[in-house]
Amino acid sequence: MKPIKVGLLGIGTVGSGTFNVLKRNQEEITRRAGRSIEIAMVADLNVERARELTHGEVEVVSDANLVVSHPDIDIVIELIGGYGIARELVLKAIANGKHVVTANKALLATHGNEIFKAAQEKGVMVAFEAAVAGGIPIIKALREGLTANRIQWIAGIINGTTNFILSEMRDKGLDFSTVLKQAQELGYAEADPTFDIEGVDAAHKATIMASIAYGIPMQFDKAYVEGITRLEASDIRYAEELGYRIKLLGITKRTPEGIELRVHPTLIPEKRLIANVEGAMNAVLVQGDAVGATLYYGKGAGSEPTASAVIADLVDITRLATADPEHRVPHLAFQPGSISNLPILPMTEIVTSYYLRMHVEDKPGVLADVTRILADFSISIDAMLQKEPGEGETQTDIIILTHQTKEKNIVAAIQKIEALNAVSGDVTKLRLEDLN
Amino acid sequence: MKPIKVGLLGIGTVGSGTFNVLKRNQEEITRRAGRSIEIAMVADLNVERARELTHGEVEVVSDANLVVSHPDIDIVIELIGGYGIARELVLKAIANGKHVVTANKALLATHGNEIFKAAQEKGVMVAFEAAVAGGIPIIKALREGLTANRIQWIAGIINGTTNFILSEMRDKGLDFSTVLKQAQELGYAEADPTFDIEGVDAAHKATIMASIAYGIPMQFDKAYVEGITRLEASDIRYAEELGYRIKLLGITKRTPEGIELRVHPTLIPEKRLIANVEGAMNAVLVQGDAVGATLYYGKGAGSEPTASAVIADLVDITRLATADPEHRVPHLAFQPGSISNLPILPMTEIVTSYYLRMHVEDKPGVLADVTRILADFSISIDAMLQKEPGEGETQTDIIILTHQTKEKNIVAAIQKIEALNAVSGDVTKLRLEDLN
Repeated sequence: MKPIKVGLLGIGTVGSGTFNVLKRNQEEITRRAGRSIEIAMVADLNVERARELTHGEVEVVSDANLVVSHPDIDIVIELIGGYGIARELVLKAIANGKHVVTANKALLATHGNEIFKAAQEKGVMVAFEAAVAGGIPIIKALREGLTANRIQWIAGIINGTTNFILSEMRDKGLDFSTVLKQAQELGYAEADPTFDIEGVDAAHKATIMASIAYGIPMQFDKAYVEGITRLEASDIRYAEELGYRIKLLGITKRTPEGIELRVHPTLIPEKRLIANVEGAMNAVLVQGDAVGATLYYGKGAGSEPTASAVIADLVDITRLATADPEHRVPHLAFQPGSISNLPILPMTEIVTSYYLRMHVEDKPGVLADVTRILADFSISIDAMLQKEPGEGETQTDIIILTHQTKEKNIVAAIQKIEALNAVSGDVTKLRLEDLN
Repeated sequence: MKPIKVGLLGIGTVGSGTFNVLKRNQEEITRRAGRSIEIAMVADLNVERARELTHGEVEVVSDANLVVSHPDIDIVIELIGGYGIARELVLKAIANGKHVVTANKALLATHGNEIFKAAQEKGVMVAFEAAVAGGIPIIKALREGLTANRIQWIAGIINGTTNFILSEMRDKGLDFSTVLKQAQELGYAEADPTFDIEGVDAAHKATIMASIAYGIPMQFDKAYVEGITRLEASDIRYAEELGYRIKLLGITKRTPEGIELRVHPTLIPEKRLIANVEGAMNAVLVQGDAVGATLYYGKGAGSEPTASAVIADLVDITRLATADPEHRVPHLAFQPGSISNLPILPMTEIVTSYYLRMHVEDKPGVLADVTRILADFSISIDAMLQKEPGEGETQTDIIILTHQTKEKNIVAAIQKIEALNAVSGDVTKLRLEDLN
């Protein structure tokens, strides 16, 4: 059979990894796919560097339009990133009857519905294994490996930068800003790390996973997004004393009322396997009604790990390219006509447990007042930690872990607690998931 | 579209799980598959119980031949087990043009080559996600998720019974036979546990994984198989003192000389995630050249977890049943014409590190003799532990961890060590893998 011809848009870290792995493992990949897969064209604004990276073996152009409209190209790989040009080019490629592989979570989480609809109408595939958790085949697991299951919840460490920062904060007892600076020096965090540390990147990925887990449209705008920038070293220490680790989790849960979709720092019991995922590694824990819990772990970013996912998509498409569209795996795991309209719940309605830290006067009656307020909102206490005041100090920290309650209850209770005279400053609230 | 009709051979634990999950999640599974999947016939010798389990909703027969030859049946699920009748029925089903789903690792590891050849010729699929690691979609990950990679090695906890026993031995400091009895009482071990505790079950699964990782035929007869029956509580304790856990691992590695394929108790560093997989859980660690290490964790057995894998295969087949055979994923991950003849290495040629425990006279010169012998075979020492003799005793244990060496070197060295006058009894030898 003649080779599948691939056009690559953007040859940065992942693009050059894709080129190199495809070349290095060409023989083995062809033995698997039954057909050779060949990058025939590359579009990059830096034509010079693109030529160097591809050793002059591939046609390089600066205008990506030439790739998405080229009659010889079967599959377009979009590695430009962002929502602007990338969206236009993906839609053009689809309109021209090309299959698309993309690692662009931001694009899919915000414009996925439009893109998948166009692909469906045109009878082409849009594959995106690389968009979530890098080289871990989590999209395939959710969309094909767990098809028997009613998926109940997913909780994932899906941003390596923040997991690296949290691991370092715990390991070395350092505060957020110090570790961020180190992470930037080591190349684990970008010069502008906003998307990572504010949880936006994780929310893009959680949005995609929710969509294929429950068969709902992409609804990034309804995700709750909270990053790790306000996390203090003391919270990590107190959590540890209570037997918990703090991880930035992307969480999505199915409840009778609707879908929870949220990203925030989360306490998890240290004895869970996922609590021990350290450094820049990713891991996704999926709870299905038949299979129970399964965990998927690996590198969530980087040149060749991400290329591994991009190429897996190329092989999948190569296997199915000439088959009838109706035999393919649906983009959102469920048939296009069977998408559910289960609503995404507002954050006030989600149910979870909480970690509360408050700074209080060390005098009788304070704890009675605090616990009375919690009781008034039917919030029961699971564990408590009160520290002795430092030498010569009159104030101390109280840490409370609650049982499950609705977010709106805890918010209301905190408001009352903060109004107490003996409580100074804000109450720190973190969410806690048992993941059992 | 009309429903896909499934015939079930054997309705025990996994069979009834499959029936129940298919029924409970029917709506969701149909939304995914695009077509309803229906168990239309069940064959079981115990017709009465089969009728009860299927609530009289399905035609039950005692003769499985009626199912594999029934013109309405599209897919046959084989859950009988063993190599005899199961092999005959699977081959008959294939000959009759039925697709087959099986959880039977023993059958595939020993007769897989014959079965896949027949399926290939007939243009039907034989799917076997449930044969390895129960509900964990590891076959899909290896065969489709990691297609970009040259797979370098796989190490898996792929037998829940033995992992439960090892976890209990470590946790409670009990010896093997005591824990085995408890495991049998709790239903974690069979009345005849030979296949599990002697490593045969794990070797069947490792054989299957090696085959699809490297594109080699199934060669169970060349696998090295060592169980956990001779493991002593003291070895688990000493390993722990040195920072290691002992797990029964199924290991397969690609080396320039050939493929290693072996099952044995293995020391692994306690800080590895897989070292912390406890109880009856399974986990498979895969090293690919592009993606690095990925880990897959979940329940490796049980009614609904295994049913989850069986049904995933049904959905895959449903999606591809009417498609051209050449667009399907090849049975052994590589195209039938591209199977490799890389040899399986004999055990004497494998390379790994070792844990040695010897019982010696507590007198000068013994350690010098032992280390001299190791040096003569170019085996270098990574760590050592010498215990003080008990009160009034003159003998003590020496534990040595070696760097990597060939198995035949360590065997020869042990022979010389055992011949020393100061060494009493056999030297205990366990293998150690760094898994880094």
